[in-house]
Amino acid sequence: MANPRAERVKDVARLGTRSGRNKAGQFLAEGPQAVREATRLHAERTAQGGDGVVRWIFATPEAAERYPDLVAGSSGTEVRLAEPAVIAAMADTVTPQGIIAVCQQTTVALEEIIAAGPRLVAVLCRVQDPGNAGTILRAADAAGADAVVTTSGSVDLFNPKAVRSTVGSIFHLPLAAGVEFAELVEALRAAGIGILAADGYGDADLDELQDGAAAHRLGDGAGEDPLLARPSAWLFGNEAAGLDASELGAADERVAVPLYGVAESLNVGTAATVCLYASARAQRPKASGHD
Amino acid sequence: MANPRAERVKDVARLGTRSGRNKAGQFLAEGPQAVREATRLHAERTAQGGDGVVRWIFATPEAAERYPDLVAGSSGTEVRLAEPAVIAAMADTVTPQGIIAVCQQTTVALEEIIAAGPRLVAVLCRVQDPGNAGTILRAADAAGADAVVTTSGSVDLFNPKAVRSTVGSIFHLPLAAGVEFAELVEALRAAGIGILAADGYGDADLDELQDGAAAHRLGDGAGEDPLLARPSAWLFGNEAAGLDASELGAADERVAVPLYGVAESLNVGTAATVCLYASARAQRPKASGHD
Repeated sequence: MANPRAERVKDVARLGTRSGRNKAGQFLAEGPQAVREATRLHAERTAQGGDGVVRWIFATPEAAERYPDLVAGSSGTEVRLAEPAVIAAMADTVTPQGIIAVCQQTTVALEEIIAAGPRLVAVLCRVQDPGNAGTILRAADAAGADAVVTTSGSVDLFNPKAVRSTVGSIFHLPLAAGVEFAELVEALRAAGIGILAADGYGDADLDELQDGAAAHRLGDGAGEDPLLARPSAWLFGNEAAGLDASELGAADERVAVPLYGVAESLNVGTAATVCLYASARAQRPKASGHD
Repeated sequence: MANPRAERVKDVARLGTRSGRNKAGQFLAEGPQAVREATRLHAERTAQGGDGVVRWIFATPEAAERYPDLVAGSSGTEVRLAEPAVIAAMADTVTPQGIIAVCQQTTVALEEIIAAGPRLVAVLCRVQDPGNAGTILRAADAAGADAVVTTSGSVDLFNPKAVRSTVGSIFHLPLAAGVEFAELVEALRAAGIGILAADGYGDADLDELQDGAAAHRLGDGAGEDPLLARPSAWLFGNEAAGLDASELGAADERVAVPLYGVAESLNVGTAATVCLYASARAQRPKASGHD
């Protein structure tokens, strides 16, 4: 492909907009790392007889040479060679490193996530910044969360900047997008999953909850599981306004990440990381020797 | 001020470049929150007979009306009214919200930081992205760190994007910039401050260190302080390359943040947050009732 003005190229470029993505049900994975994670998931799904994820890979001849594993087609993906100007016209980034993939959106229904019996879920409540959303998704993956949910009014997780910020994690865990908050609460309650609100003004201190969980882990483990060790969904709020009254009202506990210095608040991505890791630590199996 | 092409306006705009900042020893704080933190520090310092921080505040008539506390001059700062086009020409952001401050760079010598007997220091080793640097600085502030140090080859903390990412925290704690790594190591060792390297391949697991610290806190507190509870400097590395061999070699311990999911790595800002909060938790005074 040599013509950056071709209809096909414009179709791909439209995935840079929310309406373009919604219409096509697709999104862009840019650069070798994202494409690699996409093909990995594609191979895994098709091996299980499921639908693939990667629709097309477009690569410059130079990128095709540099990343032979990505264009081998061994994962059953189709690769098209394209001139650098074509890749540039398709991509959202200035430097897409010569390779991009058009992927099917990988969202699932909320019911599917709940049915799998998740122990740790990250919920983005009207988070607006794609970089923050991507950072939370990546942190959720790192902390071993089972799923990520966005409520209606949240940024699109398939926004190119959000996808980049996940550094491949968007292909790692189930996502439910644009869920109505009331529905989510009902589903979580019915499944016995606790709801924790990350709230700078919360009356529970995350460090005290962690101390409780640590005492339980290091002790004889008798009695009720500490709050952080139970199956939980964390609610993370809008950057400017935080969680609203109905979101806070739905939570079993409003938990504040303590601020030890002069900072008045934490970035939502940073707060989410600390909260999700606190749950991961409290939930992980006891080290051998303690059982 | 009405002429966006005036020499004075260009002088301020040059603070958007590293060479301009170096030459002037100044930087830009954009928007009401940053300006508020700047004036707060300015008032605090001048009240103690020290040098101020804020050189000038420029505000549109509209912003001056909206933020009367910032233009009252009660902190001894000088405020100039300027047309929106002038503010726009001075600022790095597209929407500086009508108010910016020209500030003196607030760096101190490494010796000053060490002499104050810090318990927790964040070191940016050749971190390149201003957003990451600002996020780490903000997390260091939130975790109650005593200082932030950048080694030579790091991004300039006074880069406008870095300043924005700190959301005011750049005015909250002492900074030493562009320190030679060998000098830093010597100073830390001489002061008895431990060196911890945040390293995805490290052989110490942060969660195990936290369990050790928690057991100590919750127990009788006898015996040697656990590693995380001792005065420490955390080294955070370059986004692409991580810490180099000499940086890793200087560390008392190479500590990995555990990855529970499929993610192959953490963003350096995310990893730094988890590490600094782990130290903060281990170092904070025992809750009453445990003493």
